[in-house]
Formats: sequence, structure tokens, C-alpha cells
Amino acid sequence: MREVPGGAGAWLPFLPMDIPSGNTLLDIAHSELREGLKSLGHDTAAHVQAQGQGEGFEVIKEQNGLVIKGGEPGVLYGVYSLLSCLARDEDPVTPYTEPHYPLRMLNHWDNMDGTVERGYAGSSLFFRDGAFINDWPRLRGYARMLASVGINAVCLNNVNVRPPADGLIMEEMLPKLATAADLLRAYGIRLITAIDYALPHTMGLGTADPLDPAVAAWWKERADAIYRHIPDFAGVLVKADSEFRPGPYMYGRSHAEGANMLARAFGPHGGKVIWRCFVYNCVQDWRDTKTDRPKAAWEHYAPLDGRFEDNVILQIKNGPYDFQVREPVSPRLYAMPGTAKALELQLAQEYTGHQIDLYYMPPMWREVTRDLEGYQPRHICAVSNLGSDENWTGHDLAQANLFAFGLFAWRGHTDDADADWWISLTYGADPRLRDTLGDMLLRSRAVYEKYTAPLGLCWMVRPHTHYGPDPEGYEYDKWGTYLRTDREAVGIDRSSRGTAYTLQYPEPFRMLYDSPDTCPQELLLFFHRLRFDHVLPDGRALIQYIYDTRFEGADEAERLLNDWESLEGLIPSDSYLHTLERFRRQLLNAREWRDVLNNYFRRFSGAADEKGREVY
Amino acid sequence: MREVPGGAGAWLPFLPMDIPSGNTLLDIAHSELREGLKSLGHDTAAHVQAQGQGEGFEVIKEQNGLVIKGGEPGVLYGVYSLLSCLARDEDPVTPYTEPHYPLRMLNHWDNMDGTVERGYAGSSLFFRDGAFINDWPRLRGYARMLASVGINAVCLNNVNVRPPADGLIMEEMLPKLATAADLLRAYGIRLITAIDYALPHTMGLGTADPLDPAVAAWWKERADAIYRHIPDFAGVLVKADSEFRPGPYMYGRSHAEGANMLARAFGPHGGKVIWRCFVYNCVQDWRDTKTDRPKAAWEHYAPLDGRFEDNVILQIKNGPYDFQVREPVSPRLYAMPGTAKALELQLAQEYTGHQIDLYYMPPMWREVTRDLEGYQPRHICAVSNLGSDENWTGHDLAQANLFAFGLFAWRGHTDDADADWWISLTYGADPRLRDTLGDMLLRSRAVYEKYTAPLGLCWMVRPHTHYGPDPEGYEYDKWGTYLRTDREAVGIDRSSRGTAYTLQYPEPFRMLYDSPDTCPQELLLFFHRLRFDHVLPDGRALIQYIYDTRFEGADEAERLLNDWESLEGLIPSDSYLHTLERFRRQLLNAREWRDVLNNYFRRFSGAADEKGREVY
Repeated sequence: MREVPGGAGAWLPFLPMDIPSGNTLLDIAHSELREGLKSLGHDTAAHVQAQGQGEGFEVIKEQNGLVIKGGEPGVLYGVYSLLSCLARDEDPVTPYTEPHYPLRMLNHWDNMDGTVERGYAGSSLFFRDGAFINDWPRLRGYARMLASVGINAVCLNNVNVRPPADGLIMEEMLPKLATAADLLRAYGIRLITAIDYALPHTMGLGTADPLDPAVAAWWKERADAIYRHIPDFAGVLVKADSEFRPGPYMYGRSHAEGANMLARAFGPHGGKVIWRCFVYNCVQDWRDTKTDRPKAAWEHYAPLDGRFEDNVILQIKNGPYDFQVREPVSPRLYAMPGTAKALELQLAQEYTGHQIDLYYMPPMWREVTRDLEGYQPRHICAVSNLGSDENWTGHDLAQANLFAFGLFAWRGHTDDADADWWISLTYGADPRLRDTLGDMLLRSRAVYEKYTAPLGLCWMVRPHTHYGPDPEGYEYDKWGTYLRTDREAVGIDRSSRGTAYTLQYPEPFRMLYDSPDTCPQELLLFFHRLRFDHVLPDGRALIQYIYDTRFEGADEAERLLNDWESLEGLIPSDSYLHTLERFRRQLLNAREWRDVLNNYFRRFSGAADEKGREVY
Repeated sequence: MREVPGGAGAWLPFLPMDIPSGNTLLDIAHSELREGLKSLGHDTAAHVQAQGQGEGFEVIKEQNGLVIKGGEPGVLYGVYSLLSCLARDEDPVTPYTEPHYPLRMLNHWDNMDGTVERGYAGSSLFFRDGAFINDWPRLRGYARMLASVGINAVCLNNVNVRPPADGLIMEEMLPKLATAADLLRAYGIRLITAIDYALPHTMGLGTADPLDPAVAAWWKERADAIYRHIPDFAGVLVKADSEFRPGPYMYGRSHAEGANMLARAFGPHGGKVIWRCFVYNCVQDWRDTKTDRPKAAWEHYAPLDGRFEDNVILQIKNGPYDFQVREPVSPRLYAMPGTAKALELQLAQEYTGHQIDLYYMPPMWREVTRDLEGYQPRHICAVSNLGSDENWTGHDLAQANLFAFGLFAWRGHTDDADADWWISLTYGADPRLRDTLGDMLLRSRAVYEKYTAPLGLCWMVRPHTHYGPDPEGYEYDKWGTYLRTDREAVGIDRSSRGTAYTLQYPEPFRMLYDSPDTCPQELLLFFHRLRFDHVLPDGRALIQYIYDTRFEGADEAERLLNDWESLEGLIPSDSYLHTLERFRRQLLNAREWRDVLNNYFRRFSGAADEKGREVY
């Protein structure tokens, strides 16, 4: 057994190895507080005072010791807050705090055969061979880890719902789903289930048309059945009419009509319909230079604002493409003021290094928060990076993303201190370790971006796997992702003079993005087609910038490795060695990206590197 | 059930639907002759006179009718020859003929789970779910079809031997293998089995080192066991040290040492060791411009000439790469005069259109024969294009390749009349049909080459599937297949001034290939790196030649479709419609190749099409 920092969740070494198995939030809160203090060796008197069901809490100092006050989930969050402060020798007193986002969701893309779509940490924690695994100790560890950072809703099954997962909400499977919900409930987590929109059709109705009364009645009957088993069921998650998934378009209905039918079935029970807005033409012809994939979803949804039922939540990815290293904020997140939205982030490192390369995400989230000021979505969601690996996330340090996501979802913002918080809970208080590792985490996204994606140029990854470079891998594909590199230039003109994608943005973004002179440099090639000799503000030609950043990126990947090596002895040896191997693989990957991209752009541009370095 | 021309093998409509199920060659020959004459409505008197085991035969006219004379397999071939002549209203009298190649082999790449590697005609005819299917009527139809064109040895399992196929030669499976051999034997076909070189290691010996006496003894014991079950077992097929398959290199032994150990085990029983020479470095670094994959196998094998046992046959692909549309003859086929060689062709259209696009192969084989004059290999083999599809080959017309291969293997050469022979046996005697379809078959390879692979440039196919264009799909891959296109030029210099691959050839090829001035035009970019403005003999720039041929290729694919449409009414309607759909898909494929390749080379070269056609 690997010596993983912490028992269940690397940031939880301050909690006892035994995971409480109580059936109620209060049981668990009491048990965690009592055993936690014991395991920390603190004789501080502390107790819990719960009232109501609110998620907020405060930790105050009273005569007879510390008191954690709040609703039932609130006091559990308060217990974790208190213990983690004590573990870091910080003052546990906390003024009243409540979560910024009411729904703080995790989406697992787990298939019932046990595989995880875009999973980089082993197989599914929940399913194997078409059935639930029911590994209760592991699931309690999972629930505790989520609760410790305030995540309060999870969808266990993949949004691409394939048999037998489509049957999760049918009568035979509901008792099993309810058992999972019972376990999660004790940790303040409600269950969401991804559904197959065509299920009534599959089940013999011959249609799934949302305007067919028989279909509506079928779903109402299903919702009633679900709530008989799971009274606090959070709702259903739907990927409709996207990437060959069925949906209302099959019946000539709008997505408002499609979602509202479900909303009326689940609404009376307090359930939500979480409607993924990842809709675009995924059979685009590369010869077609008019269609521009990032424009698609806005066009599908913006006209529907105000036409969704109150309990419909549109779940929208942070960028208009698909979790690339660098994208502008999706224009859909600015649109539709009259519609509930959830921001969807991806902890799974699909395009960002497969949990082999270090990629700490909060710096990106901070940019999203900044750009969305005044347009805050109502809820938040992240695609999970968890799996059956003993360390949960494949890369030990990838746990920091889950930890930071919980804090981000609670507070609505994130800052650099969150990285240090995770490090000190996970690896301890050594200042050199905290400095070095904190700096590594915080610069890791910039490093990855440097060797992979210059200036917002997307999709140079290998098709299918999405790891490693293949600059023309998507050039002739149907996914609407083209570079159109030639001897002169690279990129797509998405300005008002091109595909007019920029016009989907409100001011000031519309104006800023529309001109290469005002466009933020990191997004220059996302919005503009530019010549290789285009001069950047620092006087460098674009091609030279590409060469320079590739070299820097690979050098900095090496520095990450060296920095990690400098921590030998400060990190538990098994975690050190396991992660060392990842840093070595990252360096190989970074060099491959450097050389492939440089070679690719040299062959087109004909430009030599000004500094005479080896460009193959 | 589709109305397939013919019952078992499209060219066999002259044979009765009932496939003879006798146990001996003579039973079958008698039965085929008697029932065949009946089904053709011929009252010609004819009988069989067999003596010995020779494969040759003659059909002579005697007082009391036609007599087929030959050895036991010979007379069966004679019966098929006679019947097929009568079916075409031709004189069945045939002077004594015997096969050019003693071993005329088919290699199936069938896995025991039922899949077929590079199979485009359904699933395996032999295996499903890890076991033999034992569909005897279908297997007899298969054996009869092969016998009708003189194929006399088959390997049923994939050269990439994975469990459970590695166990085919173990005690439990041998009775099953023997049952298949019994069926095939009645049609003059001997069994070959692909083996896993590491099997002694897997089976507990802890090594597969060919120089370890225990390993040699293990194989000897296995060979003895096989021959107890299958006395005429033809031998074993080995893919060693190639694409991650185990082999003698793992133990620091040469391939002569590796093969000879097996040869000594199988030789005493009359068995062959068929040793595939598809060995190269498949983890090449694209940055490495010194290593040149086509050179690899010659380097591995040429020094070993004369060091193989007599019963070892080196099986060598026709080209140095891997069944590309256009390759020069592999230099290995010129080398090693003291070693038995088998020429390996591929009927499965892996890189040549997946049995969707029409691709009749004999024109290519004729070039191979021409270039190998004086260097004839001793045996011949083809990778099968057969599967569980009702029409055996996916594309009805792809059967013509199997048919022609049989004739080619028998005679050692092929000519245009073979196409007409197949057509008239399959679809009948209508002169317009024979003219039109004959012309379509004979030009099909040139058409496919025109839209896919200009001037011998290889590997612009989509990785993994090998269907459709992806010009940079292999550019950064480890398979040693690079174009190195840039703004000026394309291709690899394989001349004496470059990788020196041309020096592996004997004269006059060495001299011819070494200079772009004397290199056959169709191989120009196989051997040379040339500028886009390189002037071809007809005065055209190379880039213009690329554009022109792409447009021509797509136009000619359309002409194939139109020609097929002109045959409506002359072709059985089900075959007509089924194949029509293939021609339509071919046209889409041809246009995609045209547009992608033109776009690709335009982006690099910057050249406009002189004729002003649409280059995207």
C-alpha cells in the first residue's frame, strides 16, 4: 500500500483514520469533532449547536470553549473548518460564513462498466460491470472529503448516459440509488442523476417528444417514484442534442420546451433540471469557413432567455469551446439574465495534462471570476478528477484542484492562499516546502500553457486522447476546430470583420476582443488571424514569441522537476517518488510539445529562431 | 438474405448450391464434376483420373469424353478449371499445368474474439468469443472457393498472436485445430498456425531463448504433438520482434538462430517456419532524420543470408513500408539469394480503400513481377480480405482480388484477361457489362492512387483506421513515416546523397532510383525530396501535378460511379444496389482526399492552381 499523505483525502491527515459511519449530519459532526480533537492532540473544549437546515456556520469562543453554530450541514462544515484551523495552528474562530453558490456540484463521468470518461485516476469509484460497487468505507471517505470542502451535490453517472446507466432511475435500480443517497446525505451531499432524454422512447412509449402528454406523464410518474426513494433528490442532469445524444430537437422542440417538461415533473418535489448547454454542430465541414463553433451555443440559447421554468439551471462551460488551456469566458455566461445558470469547470485534466502534468487551476478560475463580475452565475459545478486510484486523483498534487474548487464554490472567489492551505494540510508546515510547492502550483498553469497553447490557439492536442501535441490533428475533422495555418498566418478571424463571434460579448469585452490592438495578448490567436510577422507590444514577431514561449515552457517544466527534487525528504517518500515520476513524464511531454510546435510553425513560416536554438 | 451473385464465392455460380462434404479430395472432385455438369446443363461426358499427390493437371479429350488427369489435388483443380471453362462457353481442354509457387498461402488476421485486424468484411469466419465457430457449411464454402483458385495453405489466426490464440497449439486446442485441418484437407488446403514466440516462457519455462536447450525441446515436443493431430500440418507463421511482438532479440539472438530452432522442431515432420520480416524500429523519434524505416528490414536480414535452415521461409511484404498504394519493390526481395522467400501481398484493403473504394490489385502485382524478374521469390502469400459478410469481401467486386490472387499464385503472373475471367464467371457474358466492368477494375488502382498518394508519397492516411486523408497524421508519430513538408519542398531524400536507401537495390534499380531524372515518375517522392516548383518531364511544376491529379482522381471516382450506374439491369439488383452505395461512399472519400490534400499543399506551397479550380 502506498504511503499516501492523509487517509481519505490528502488534506485530511488531521482527521482520524476511522471515517465516521453515522446516519445523520449531527452524528457525523459530533464524531468528527470528538475524534478529530483527539487525533490532533488538542484538549480544547468544543461543541456543536445546530439549529435548522442552513449551510452557514460560525465558530465562536464562549466561556466553556469553542462553539460551532449553524444549521445541520453548517455545523459539519464548521467542524471541518475548526479542525483544519487547529491542524495549521491557526485561530479557529470564524465569523458567520455561508456559501456563495447554493449548489456546489461535482459531475462524475463514470460509466457503469467501471470506466471513467476522461478519467485519469483509475476506474470508477461507484460502478463496475454494470452495477454499483458499494465499497462503503471508500465511499464514506469520498463523501467526507467532499464535505470537508463543502461540496453539496454530486452526479455519479456520466452525462453521456448509455445502458445500463439509463435505467438508474427505473424501479429496479432506485433502491440501489437510494442507498448511495443515504450515505451521501449524512455528509450533506444530495444526489443528481444524469438521464437519457430518450428514455420514454426506449421504455416503450415510442416517443420522447416533450410536448406529448404521455411523455410528460411518464416523467412525472418517474419523478414521483424517485422521490419516494430519495426524498431530497437534487435533480436530473441532461446532455441533450449534443454529440449524438438525443434531445428535444429530434422532435422539433426548443430546449426550453424540452427542459420545462422535465422541470414540471421534478419541480413539485423541489428537484432541479440541470441542462447542459454544450450544443454545437459536431459534424462541421472543414471547408465551411462561415460556421464558427464557439458561436453555436449562444445562438441556440440566448433567444430562449426567460422561457425556462424556475427550477431549470443551464450548466455552461467556462469557455465557448471545451475546457482548453486558454479560452475567453463563454458569451453565454453574460447572456440570459432571466435564466438560472451554473458555471461548469473541469477538474479532470482532459486537455490540461491528464493528471500527469502539474496543472493547478485556480489562477484560471480567478480570471473567469474577474471577467464575469456583474454576471455571476447562480450555481457552480466541476467535472470530477477522482477515481479508484489510492490517492484519488492519479497525481497527488491534483488533489489541490478539488480542494480549491470546494473553497472557490463556497466563497465565490479563490486566492493564492488556498494553495498554501492545501499544502500545509497535506504535507505539513515546513516553510521551505510551503514556499516551493506553493510557487510550483501557482505557476503550473502558465508553464503548461507556455509549451502547449500559444496566445489562445486551441486544439493542437492529439485527437481522441487529448494528451500530447498534434497541431493538425483536428484540422480536417468535423469538430469545428481549425487553425488554418498557412505560409503567412495562423488562426481564425472571429472579429466583426470575420465570423463576428466577438459581437456575442457585452461591452467592454466586445470592443476589447474585436481588435488585435486591444485584445488581451493571451487571447490574441483565439480571436484573430495574424501574420507570423505580426509585431507584439514588446517588439517581438509573433513567430518569435511562439518559439520563445515553447523553449521557456520546456525549461520551466524542467524547473518544476528540479523544484520537486529539492523537496526530497520534506515529502513522504512514497508521495515524493510517485510524483517525481509524473514530473519526469511532464518534462518529456513538454519537450515534445516544444519541438513539435516549433517544427510545425517553422515549416509553415520559414522563420529561423532569432536566438539560434534548435528548431527541428 | 442479399441476392449475392453465386452461392459460395461470387465466381462460382456454375457450381451447385450444395457444397460437397466429402472427406477426400477425390470424393470432392467426383462430386463437383458430376453435380457441376448437371447444374450447367452440360451432358458432356467427363471423368477424373488421379494418380499421386501432384498439384498439376491436364484436361484432355479422349474418345469417351473429357478426362482430367493429375495428382489428387491436381484433379480437383482440373475439375474447377473444366467447369469454369464450360460456364464461359470456352474449350475446357487444358494442356498440363502446374503451379508456379509451391506454397500459395492466405493469411487471415483473425482474432479469437471474432474480430479481424484490418478486416473490412464483417467478423471472423472461424472464431467467436475465444472459440472456434464451426459453421461447417460456411467453412466448406470457404474451402471450396479457395480450392477453385488453387490456394493450398491458410493461416487462420492473426500474426499478432494474443491469448487465447497462443494456446491453439496446446493440447486442449489441438483436436479443434485438427477438425478444421480435416475439413480443409479435403479441398487440398493445409493448415498453418501463427504462434507466439514467447509461448515457452508463458507456459512456465521462464524463457523463450532459442539457444536454451529446454526451449528447443519444448518446441520439439509441441511439433511432435501437432503432427500427431495434423499429419500434413504446413507449418508455423511467426511475427517476431516486430511492433511489440516478442522474438529472439529479447534474448540477444539473431533471427536466424530464432527461426532455425523452430525449423529443427518442425522440419522432421515436413513443416515450414514462415518467418515474417516486418521488422523495424516502431518507436522512432521524428526528430531523427538519419533512421529511415524502409531501410530497416534489409539491414536486419541481408547479413543472415545462407544461415537459415532449408525449411525456413522469409515472408516479405512487396514494399519496404507496409502495403501503401505505391511503393517500390522491397530491396529484401532482391537480396538473400541463398534463402527461401515468400512474397507477401495484402488483399485486405488496409490502406487502399477498406473494400469501400474499388481497388483491383493485379496491375500492381504485375509491376512487382516485372521488377522482380530474375529475383523470383519461392512462395507466395496474401493477407485475406475475407470475413463473415454474406458476400465474403464486403465489396462484391473485392472478390476479384482473391480470385486474381489465386490465378497469380498458380501461374506466377497475371494479365488483364483475369479480370474478364472473374467478371464473366460472376456476372455473365454480356459484352457491354464485361467491357465496362473490366475497364473499371483495371483502372481502379490508378484512380485510387490519383486522389490519395501523389508520386509515391506515402502515409497521408488517417492514423489507426488508415481510411481517409490526414496528411500530417503520422508526421510526429513513432512509426518512421514522415513527409517533412515545408514551404519549399516535400519528401525524404533516400538517394545516396540522403539516407542512402537506394544503395540497398541492385543495378539497374540503384542507378535509376538514385536520381530524380531517372527515377520512375510514380516513385519520385518516394525516393526524393523535391521542391514544389520542380519541373516534371511534361513541363508541369510538381505542385501543379499534385493539384491536377487530385482533381482527376475525384473526377474519375465519379466516372466509376457513373459507369456502375450504366450497368443497372445487367447486374443482379441486390449486388447492383449494394455496390452502388460503395461507389457513392468512394466518391465522397475521393472528394475529401482531393480537397484535403490540395488544401494541405496549398497552405505550405502558397501556389495557386493554374486552372483556377477551387483549392480550399
